[in-house]
Amino acid sequence: MNKRIYILLLSLFVGCLYSVADAQINYSITERLTKDWKFLKSDLGSIWEAVRPYSPGNPEAVPLWEDIELPHCVNATDAVDPDVNYYQGPSWYKKCLTLNNPFKEGRIILHFEGAGQKCEVYVFTELVASHIGGYDEWSVDITDAVARFLKTKDAERFKGQIPLSIRCDNTRDTELIPSDLSDFNLYGGIYRYLNLVYTPSLSIKQVKISPQVNDELNRGTVNLDLSFLDYRKEKSYTDSVLIEIFDPSGKRILSDEKVIELSESGLSSDYQISKPQLWSTIHPNLYSCELTLLSSSGNIKVKDNFGFRKTYFEKQGPFYLNNERLLLRGTHRHEDHAGLGAAMTEDLIRKEMLLMKDMGVNFIRLGHYQQSRIVLDLCDSLGILVWEEIPWCRGGLGGEAYQNQAKNMLKQMITQHYNHPSVLLWGLGNENDWPNDFPEFDKQKIRTFMSELHELAHKLDNSRGTAIRRCHFCKDIVDVYSPSIWAGWYRGIYTDYKSASLTEMKKVDHFLHVEWGGDSHARRYAESTYESLSDIKESNEAADERAGDASFYGGIARASKDGDWSESYIVDLIDWHLKEQETMEWLTGAAYWPFKDFSTPVRPLNPVPYMNQKGVVERDLTPKEGYYVFQSYWVEQPMIHIYGQNWDIRWGKKGENKIIKIYSNCDEVELFVNGQSLGTKQRNSQDFPAAGLRWEYPFKAGNYHLKALGVKKGETVKTEQKLAYESRPFGDATQMLVKLTENGEQSCWVEVQLIDENGVPALLSQDWVRFNVIGDGHLEVNQGTSSGSSKVQAFNGKARVKLNKQDGVSAVSIAVKGIGTELIKIK
Amino acid sequence: MNKRIYILLLSLFVGCLYSVADAQINYSITERLTKDWKFLKSDLGSIWEAVRPYSPGNPEAVPLWEDIELPHCVNATDAVDPDVNYYQGPSWYKKCLTLNNPFKEGRIILHFEGAGQKCEVYVFTELVASHIGGYDEWSVDITDAVARFLKTKDAERFKGQIPLSIRCDNTRDTELIPSDLSDFNLYGGIYRYLNLVYTPSLSIKQVKISPQVNDELNRGTVNLDLSFLDYRKEKSYTDSVLIEIFDPSGKRILSDEKVIELSESGLSSDYQISKPQLWSTIHPNLYSCELTLLSSSGNIKVKDNFGFRKTYFEKQGPFYLNNERLLLRGTHRHEDHAGLGAAMTEDLIRKEMLLMKDMGVNFIRLGHYQQSRIVLDLCDSLGILVWEEIPWCRGGLGGEAYQNQAKNMLKQMITQHYNHPSVLLWGLGNENDWPNDFPEFDKQKIRTFMSELHELAHKLDNSRGTAIRRCHFCKDIVDVYSPSIWAGWYRGIYTDYKSASLTEMKKVDHFLHVEWGGDSHARRYAESTYESLSDIKESNEAADERAGDASFYGGIARASKDGDWSESYIVDLIDWHLKEQETMEWLTGAAYWPFKDFSTPVRPLNPVPYMNQKGVVERDLTPKEGYYVFQSYWVEQPMIHIYGQNWDIRWGKKGENKIIKIYSNCDEVELFVNGQSLGTKQRNSQDFPAAGLRWEYPFKAGNYHLKALGVKKGETVKTEQKLAYESRPFGDATQMLVKLTENGEQSCWVEVQLIDENGVPALLSQDWVRFNVIGDGHLEVNQGTSSGSSKVQAFNGKARVKLNKQDGVSAVSIAVKGIGTELIKIK
Repeated sequence: MNKRIYILLLSLFVGCLYSVADAQINYSITERLTKDWKFLKSDLGSIWEAVRPYSPGNPEAVPLWEDIELPHCVNATDAVDPDVNYYQGPSWYKKCLTLNNPFKEGRIILHFEGAGQKCEVYVFTELVASHIGGYDEWSVDITDAVARFLKTKDAERFKGQIPLSIRCDNTRDTELIPSDLSDFNLYGGIYRYLNLVYTPSLSIKQVKISPQVNDELNRGTVNLDLSFLDYRKEKSYTDSVLIEIFDPSGKRILSDEKVIELSESGLSSDYQISKPQLWSTIHPNLYSCELTLLSSSGNIKVKDNFGFRKTYFEKQGPFYLNNERLLLRGTHRHEDHAGLGAAMTEDLIRKEMLLMKDMGVNFIRLGHYQQSRIVLDLCDSLGILVWEEIPWCRGGLGGEAYQNQAKNMLKQMITQHYNHPSVLLWGLGNENDWPNDFPEFDKQKIRTFMSELHELAHKLDNSRGTAIRRCHFCKDIVDVYSPSIWAGWYRGIYTDYKSASLTEMKKVDHFLHVEWGGDSHARRYAESTYESLSDIKESNEAADERAGDASFYGGIARASKDGDWSESYIVDLIDWHLKEQETMEWLTGAAYWPFKDFSTPVRPLNPVPYMNQKGVVERDLTPKEGYYVFQSYWVEQPMIHIYGQNWDIRWGKKGENKIIKIYSNCDEVELFVNGQSLGTKQRNSQDFPAAGLRWEYPFKAGNYHLKALGVKKGETVKTEQKLAYESRPFGDATQMLVKLTENGEQSCWVEVQLIDENGVPALLSQDWVRFNVIGDGHLEVNQGTSSGSSKVQAFNGKARVKLNKQDGVSAVSIAVKGIGTELIKIK
Repeated sequence: MNKRIYILLLSLFVGCLYSVADAQINYSITERLTKDWKFLKSDLGSIWEAVRPYSPGNPEAVPLWEDIELPHCVNATDAVDPDVNYYQGPSWYKKCLTLNNPFKEGRIILHFEGAGQKCEVYVFTELVASHIGGYDEWSVDITDAVARFLKTKDAERFKGQIPLSIRCDNTRDTELIPSDLSDFNLYGGIYRYLNLVYTPSLSIKQVKISPQVNDELNRGTVNLDLSFLDYRKEKSYTDSVLIEIFDPSGKRILSDEKVIELSESGLSSDYQISKPQLWSTIHPNLYSCELTLLSSSGNIKVKDNFGFRKTYFEKQGPFYLNNERLLLRGTHRHEDHAGLGAAMTEDLIRKEMLLMKDMGVNFIRLGHYQQSRIVLDLCDSLGILVWEEIPWCRGGLGGEAYQNQAKNMLKQMITQHYNHPSVLLWGLGNENDWPNDFPEFDKQKIRTFMSELHELAHKLDNSRGTAIRRCHFCKDIVDVYSPSIWAGWYRGIYTDYKSASLTEMKKVDHFLHVEWGGDSHARRYAESTYESLSDIKESNEAADERAGDASFYGGIARASKDGDWSESYIVDLIDWHLKEQETMEWLTGAAYWPFKDFSTPVRPLNPVPYMNQKGVVERDLTPKEGYYVFQSYWVEQPMIHIYGQNWDIRWGKKGENKIIKIYSNCDEVELFVNGQSLGTKQRNSQDFPAAGLRWEYPFKAGNYHLKALGVKKGETVKTEQKLAYESRPFGDATQMLVKLTENGEQSCWVEVQLIDENGVPALLSQDWVRFNVIGDGHLEVNQGTSSGSSKVQAFNGKARVKLNKQDGVSAVSIAVKGIGTELIKIK
């Protein structure tokens, strides 16, 4: 449970900013409403159905509601269920609130950190507010509705509690962004925290903190712009606000009390700070500003962080942070997690962001929508620059309601995340050249709307630039442009990367390359991954994705369709890109797509159905090989990793030389096979692959133990690995071997190895495997991972799933089309 | 495939009547649109999503649509899935039509026989029509929309076919009847036939046939009232209509050709028929009327049946048909079937109605909504009088839209089913004394609305009366009233039946008792069913159901809550009622509720979850014991049935006398046990139970063979049965025995017998059993039967389910809470 207490500064349906107050300030009380919710995945016939009296067993007792906790995503499991379309429709949440407002004549507010995609909030039968948009924050002042409810004759029935009902609706709607053509789920539910907030009748509506630093970086100014929310029946002449500023060490460096004039709806102040401690990705120094409202209606304290930093994009040149070149080493994030959908807890978000930082990331594109305040706070404190965007993504351009909503989302995002020093760019759209949500597709109208968004962003925040990815006919409108370059995946080969980037860079003033990479089916390896790619043509011109390239059908040869989706291939692709980026002096940066595998409705045919498998970690945060390749280029702390962490059987002819690769940032690495040193190699990032840290070894059938020692600036790191070598030739799978591993009291893994007619493992089999269970146990499926799906393509002829035994007896079926079905009983 | 060709006489959103033409009339073409449909259980973002172009594997290809055939019910399986609420939301159907209209300038019409609950019909992207109400027929003239589509640039893409999309929506809606508090599912889908109809530009809109017969029953008159639908661009002076009437033997008895005057929108004619062959429940003589429209725009023929019959309700006395007293021996029907929901085919409907007729039914209440035209045709031809009603059922009274819709449903029902001689009464409502869909419940407003419905019904059809069931404060408004009398189920004991009926009969002019009976879990028997009922109080006053009586919680003692839900109890209850009805000279009739077990969302806790188990046949039409009790009272054809058809183990002390009962309509019956005659008994309907056809026999442990011979008017019928006797005492279930029976190549039954700690069958166990399957096979669950459910209460410690092997290997789990889980592997 998070100990911080939020003070909510609210404005309904208007751009607003929520700041954070210390827990010890007990006269302002906020509570995360996580417990005791009832959930219904259906619509109601009317709000009366949610609150009418009923006796158990009577018709009024149906439909049956589930007990759940918030945050909660309607699509926690069905988004990756291989057998259904994910639910897109209305749902209801209800609970009875116990209120205890400490402020006389204070306000009672529900603060939503985000819920999908349209919401209605009811107190008893009264519709208090509705909201459209699944990604911004919004608040509902229920004070008056609560008072009205308490006067009804029904109040007695609820014994002082307040019946709260919330309808969430993620029904498909082409007149609402994002488009359902997008490569991610439009989740339903209250999937971010919902807070109950009490404020005095005079409170702070918004705090806009605008820090600036001079060119020499030795003088800072900060402007504070406050606005009040005033419900006072009688105004006071003595109400004041105490402004305090603390430096990154927590030392108070400024204190200023201002009386609030009666007519004042806000106030603005400028303060000078000499020799400011700059915020950077390496030293994310955060100042804080505390505002204490001292009022006859009650006192509250509001706190928010800010930072001094200077950013600069050189024309067709690199990016500078605080006057030094910084190569933006980026990735992307969706709000999505195994078993949870969008409903990640604060702890899990922190775990994910730390894992990202540990990979060496200093930049992130929050694609394709405004994300949780928790993410932005972590970017501030971890030193990760942010491109945050609105979900105008694919489908074309809708009508007036559509456009108003998109503009409102932009306004909300900028206003709500304005204070975060990590934010670098406001994104206006993604793939707006993709038609098909409407019969009409008019490029000129899209240009016009893009310009309106650009102007609105600058009006709301003149300190930051705008950006879009892939809409070539709008590239002149925004400040920073990313074309589509998928060298070696949707187009061409990965060695095209540098020249394709150079070509594209020259077309705009400010080029920043977001989205590169490719899919890999976790745990799938290949000895030779290039054979199926021989028809792919090199392209010096462009490597952009075109219509239909993501399909498995038709079109020209491309890795995304013709490749093996192995980790082996992706490791090379990543390795090559990172090697090249080291020598692209003009490059602002690039962002790998994405950090984590994520769910998407548009890819039912993928090896893990409905998963975009381009992540360098699986959907449950398990690192894939690519994660370590990034580390080997990007982190300072010494690390060493033997490629093939889950590759338990390599194969080839007897005595055939095979390459063993080490991904490490060490200056030199020594490799041992079965205790014998194969010698020490020096790291050279331009020596592809594995920066020269590779050895050849003549394998024979048998088991091997690998050990590697790395030394970086005198510090030694070590790693080990076991594997077997198969020298017998093998064919297609015709049989299966099922076994249990890690078979403990609570759980076990059910593993299947497909074998050929001679009993040799069919190590190239990509057959589809189906798992199912009966009995007491529970299979961990619908996770969106290669080890957590009821339908999954084999990796190297293997597949597996975890059984939670639940103290009983179970049977698991393993079915492979054309081969048969095996059953295994497990106690 | 039905060979008849319907000619559709359409009027959109207006009461309309569809008549039937012979198949040989080839210039009027109708086709049931059953094949090649795509189905999506979700809403779309816009109609464009249904028809936009896409390439396989692209985002436009999701969500995935299913291939289905019509009729189709969205809730075919989920209505009785014990683990989910049934889906209540929008769904889409689409297909491409190939049109071939033989009439120059003719019309193209989609004729819906019924679809739930709200529909929208689109040709390409054009919304052509919408309809509210799940039970009436309606039509859409798509002629102009098709012409508009063919002029668009998109037409080429569809290669001459017409993209048709239909949105069905059964979302909960308290402002629409029926209420979701009703004891049946509000199904979604195109669950009755959808027909494609071609007509010439001049066609017949409506044919109202009003036959009358004089008091002496020897002179008939028939009035024909036609209206035309005229789309002709140029009128003709020579167009005419040929009217022909055929007697029940098919002989033409009248022919009359009338020229259609240019200004005429219809015409009316009277014809005399002397010595008409009367329609009755025993001799359902049907006349037919053929109308041939001879027009320059094309010729069509229309045919419909009618009958001459006279009905009369004596004040507080019996009912007369054609001047003779007829005891209405009735039951009820829902549109619901195992594995199909509402989507019953014509063949299945016929099978059900024939089974009903074979039980001796001469009356049916089509509760609680207008039913398929196929049902009404069968009632006409089988001789079953009908009470048909609109679904104003429970919940209270809604607003203006609600009331208008209810009135429109009444108008549609009366107009569309006016010609059927079987229709006796128009029902206006059921349980309108049940509040809770709205905060308000105002009896006076309900009375006012009931009066309006009553007047509307008489205005539309002055030849028939109105009726309602259970709304005591409206009983004076309608012509015929049924109170709630559930003697021995929701209230009191079944021996209260006669006195309770007499009491209620005296409160109104015309009493007709619909809904009596009780639930029975198919295959559950009891040696002694009355022990748990000892707290139930006799009631001479009333046996009406009151609020909460259907619940398993709280309230006074009652069989519905405290009884064993055995077939044994229900057999006695039915036997008693039928015995009494034979001596109630003043009785118009009574209708057992219902013929067939049916699905209901409001009974999740029943032995078969979500099933109302009051039927005398199971949801798949398998007869329960009660079916034969009815036959023994109601049919003429000799029949004989040994009670306990599925009771394979009886129990008691060694040598204890047990009653063996025979249900038969024979004059005398002889029973043999293991070949030894126990003597012959005479049937006496007033000798309860089993009309005196019962024998005592001292059973010992072992196996028995029973045989019975019955003689009726010299004709002999015979039946046999096997059973075992268990003389060991037994306790609660602590173990289970699983076995396979009828184990064939294609399928087998998985049966579990629960046993006590000594290994004796726990014959009174009602433990919950869960079945599940993995592997290739398919379990026949979600059928709503006691042998076709994944979660079911044991009958006599037993449960079973059928496995379709699908040529593979399967494992079935059998889990009983507190006992354990067994797994069985099946090849």
